[in-house]
Amino acid sequence: MNRGLMAALLVGAACLAVPATGQGGDDTNRIIDEGYNRSQVMQTAQEMTDGIGPRLTNSPAMRRAEAWAIGKFEGWGLSNVRRDGFEFGRGWEILSVSARMVAPRPLALTAIPIAWTPSTNGPVTAPIIVAPMSKEEHFAEWKGKLAGKIVLVSLPGDGDEPDKPAFRRLSGDDIGKLDEFRQPKYDPDALNRRLERVTFAEKLDAFLKAEGAVAMVRESYRDGKLVHGEGYNYRVGHSPTLPGIELAAEDYRRLARLAKSGAPPQLEIDSNVRYDDSDTRAYNIIAEIPGTDPKAGYVMAGAHFDSWVAGDGATDNGAGSAVVMEAARIIRKLGIRPKRTIRFVLWSAEEQGLLGSLAYVDKYLAARPGPTEGEDGNALYYGWPSRYPITPKPGYGDLKAYFNMDNGSGKLRGIYAEGNVGAVPILQSWLAPFASMGAGKVVAGPTSGTDHVYMQSVGVPGFQFIQDPLDYGSRTHHSNADTFDHLKADDLRQASVVMAGMLVTAANSDKTLPRFPVPTQPTPYNPFKYKDPND
Amino acid sequence: MNRGLMAALLVGAACLAVPATGQGGDDTNRIIDEGYNRSQVMQTAQEMTDGIGPRLTNSPAMRRAEAWAIGKFEGWGLSNVRRDGFEFGRGWEILSVSARMVAPRPLALTAIPIAWTPSTNGPVTAPIIVAPMSKEEHFAEWKGKLAGKIVLVSLPGDGDEPDKPAFRRLSGDDIGKLDEFRQPKYDPDALNRRLERVTFAEKLDAFLKAEGAVAMVRESYRDGKLVHGEGYNYRVGHSPTLPGIELAAEDYRRLARLAKSGAPPQLEIDSNVRYDDSDTRAYNIIAEIPGTDPKAGYVMAGAHFDSWVAGDGATDNGAGSAVVMEAARIIRKLGIRPKRTIRFVLWSAEEQGLLGSLAYVDKYLAARPGPTEGEDGNALYYGWPSRYPITPKPGYGDLKAYFNMDNGSGKLRGIYAEGNVGAVPILQSWLAPFASMGAGKVVAGPTSGTDHVYMQSVGVPGFQFIQDPLDYGSRTHHSNADTFDHLKADDLRQASVVMAGMLVTAANSDKTLPRFPVPTQPTPYNPFKYKDPND
Repeated sequence: MNRGLMAALLVGAACLAVPATGQGGDDTNRIIDEGYNRSQVMQTAQEMTDGIGPRLTNSPAMRRAEAWAIGKFEGWGLSNVRRDGFEFGRGWEILSVSARMVAPRPLALTAIPIAWTPSTNGPVTAPIIVAPMSKEEHFAEWKGKLAGKIVLVSLPGDGDEPDKPAFRRLSGDDIGKLDEFRQPKYDPDALNRRLERVTFAEKLDAFLKAEGAVAMVRESYRDGKLVHGEGYNYRVGHSPTLPGIELAAEDYRRLARLAKSGAPPQLEIDSNVRYDDSDTRAYNIIAEIPGTDPKAGYVMAGAHFDSWVAGDGATDNGAGSAVVMEAARIIRKLGIRPKRTIRFVLWSAEEQGLLGSLAYVDKYLAARPGPTEGEDGNALYYGWPSRYPITPKPGYGDLKAYFNMDNGSGKLRGIYAEGNVGAVPILQSWLAPFASMGAGKVVAGPTSGTDHVYMQSVGVPGFQFIQDPLDYGSRTHHSNADTFDHLKADDLRQASVVMAGMLVTAANSDKTLPRFPVPTQPTPYNPFKYKDPND
Repeated sequence: MNRGLMAALLVGAACLAVPATGQGGDDTNRIIDEGYNRSQVMQTAQEMTDGIGPRLTNSPAMRRAEAWAIGKFEGWGLSNVRRDGFEFGRGWEILSVSARMVAPRPLALTAIPIAWTPSTNGPVTAPIIVAPMSKEEHFAEWKGKLAGKIVLVSLPGDGDEPDKPAFRRLSGDDIGKLDEFRQPKYDPDALNRRLERVTFAEKLDAFLKAEGAVAMVRESYRDGKLVHGEGYNYRVGHSPTLPGIELAAEDYRRLARLAKSGAPPQLEIDSNVRYDDSDTRAYNIIAEIPGTDPKAGYVMAGAHFDSWVAGDGATDNGAGSAVVMEAARIIRKLGIRPKRTIRFVLWSAEEQGLLGSLAYVDKYLAARPGPTEGEDGNALYYGWPSRYPITPKPGYGDLKAYFNMDNGSGKLRGIYAEGNVGAVPILQSWLAPFASMGAGKVVAGPTSGTDHVYMQSVGVPGFQFIQDPLDYGSRTHHSNADTFDHLKADDLRQASVVMAGMLVTAANSDKTLPRFPVPTQPTPYNPFKYKDPND
């Protein structure tokens, strides 16, 4: 079938009714029984977070996690369990870190190495200089002043005054506000800002190195001694040359004040990290429950498996990963044979720009012009979503629905229709059995920032669930507090049941979801437009 | 004058009207001008917190802080500036600390030495055992099982779910709820619980030592990587023999889970602390503005100057200390000569049981029977408030009003009349000029847990201000986040103005506050009865 024909057919996909062959309510009740009475979701989450710990893309711990996940899927009897690789960059891990002020008074500081920065190779001691730089234009002011210094590059902020509860569940009103169609509106600079994050970091590193600085220090963006350590310069040949750490906001601001009121404080930093370039490819983990009708296509659930390194990647996104795995376990355990194949994917490199799901789209769903995978440069990742035309691949129409989970541990409250209002009635009917569990609401509004958006950007119906925020936005997201004990068992059991139920229903449904035409310009699904309600 | 006569007269003190000699409204406007337009309160607070850092009772830093405060008061021209000593115990300071899990995977832990525990004398590495013990009855279960182990003594809790904003100001409704007289009601076990905190810690330490344990570890009582490190075994000859650290709740709970699901994790702990027994006396710092009428008695403002060690003692209680100092500076700068002497006190050892203000009461205001100061034992401190009869000392009647500040950085919203409803109209008239600054409300209810309560317990009118809570209860109180940048300049300027204004008005007032009879049994002022609204 040529692509033009396929694309034309796909536009009308919503009209292609397929007779029901599934077990309907019976399956749903069996899923509820298995998912609530014999749940393994917390056990799975604990092995992943307490046991393996943080899973930075391509880190040694992520390699262990990949092997563990494959073992789990295989142990549960899933089919076609495999790693699906794509070019990424360096592996990196933290062995230990310490930072302390040694003058004017001894003081332990809360610090984390910034991802993909190099070791200090033992403790380094130097005076600080506060030299806020967020644009290249700022470099001139500090030229000639940084040699031998530990450079504090953030503009010291003020203490925050959080006026909302740190832990929160959504009211009906909160959810109601999400139920609003928004007219397509493109923010052309959004992608540039993402690219700038990477390229400015490289320029700053080069400038500091050329000036003879000893190390770079930035301020945490959260108060209350939380640190994060995100870094984006992971490509081989492009990782930072200078050690870099993030300090707790309280510690950073104290240093900045002391530097202003007296002799510059002296710090001792010991950042002990290690690169691993043995395999520069990252891997999505895929597992399946084969459908009975090879021509009926497939439905898919996914969550990103990679995390940042400050905590154990529990709410971001051990939660979603464990729920996707538990949904797979439940469906397989019950021996359900759906009409359509159900595919489960644990994405890698989401935290660096949704790169695992991008690779999947690029490989299986639709091609966009421009740099190819092997090509050097940031343009592949950051230019990709804005390049047209989109050329559907043979598998484009096979993916009938994608369900993503990546908003922490909070229970599912419904689903974002993402502007696809034609899908609302079908999604509503699919969620109806779970309304009494609090998950029944379908809202027109969109969400963004995770692995369904690149599917949306080529016109594939991909959806993210609405979740209770809990303390995801306020403190666990990316932070050193992102540990297993911020996961809520009741919520994750509910999410697993709803996820499994939705997948089986979608896989057996005689209706498929309506699709938009293949986009010829940025769509309401633009991944960089909308603010996450948890942020 | 014999004491019986004096006590009888004191009961009628409210009736002893003294003619006004002060400058009234004029002084108030000058205080407002100086306090808002040429404030030094933030500079004072910054020197105290950023510069000196935490001020644990009798620590080397506290000695530096005492000398600094005396220098400040003298520099501003205060009179009778002095240290007023009382027997306390050991000095102690943290030089550095690190704790990490070395198996089953490398992981930095957030830790703080528990106050007055000894050094590890270099890194110690050992497996953990989770052995929750909170009563002597629990020891039997663990006998013979602790040798060579790092013992985790807390029962691992669950993650918290904070459902109130971390940062909060009081509404009129909130304040209204405080305006309620409560009938005297004594909790006879409150003091025993405080004593138990000290004696159980000694017994636990002895048990662990006898069993051959390597170190003791407890769990932080706050989530989100905050640690505190409070300890109460500061007396010479009674400090702990085993190193002890507090771990962040996330870290502690992870260890406990790992110990349950596999081989016990191994920790490496390096707690580098130092005792200083060169002077076992603690010191209150006193400064005065002399009154023009030696027979008119004195009014007093106070705040505790000591802190715990995890942060820099900023909101607890650098804030109150800086406000008391700023009030002194303002009044002295303006050359105000009040009728009554105004005394400013920075208390020590508040954190160990209000011991500085207890010593002041014991020395100047009223005697109670029982153990005397030189006597060994905890009974002096923990039995004192419940011993009768109270015998007023010659200076008992001279103290006409005491104002305390110790609820963080939040602006003053009014004052607790502490059940002394007869004082309400006078306090209201004194606060009236500050009503438009939000500080005008007098409430009947009590507050507790700080240095006015031992004055109340002997019948002296001592009061604590109502303050906006901000993030004091939620995260800064005693924690590693208690740093200068959680202080609010607008609020502390307002508090300084109100404090200075109240002191001058009280020092010049032709009315003195009504007093209760000398208590013969626990009173509504019982210091251990009421819950702080910030808690």
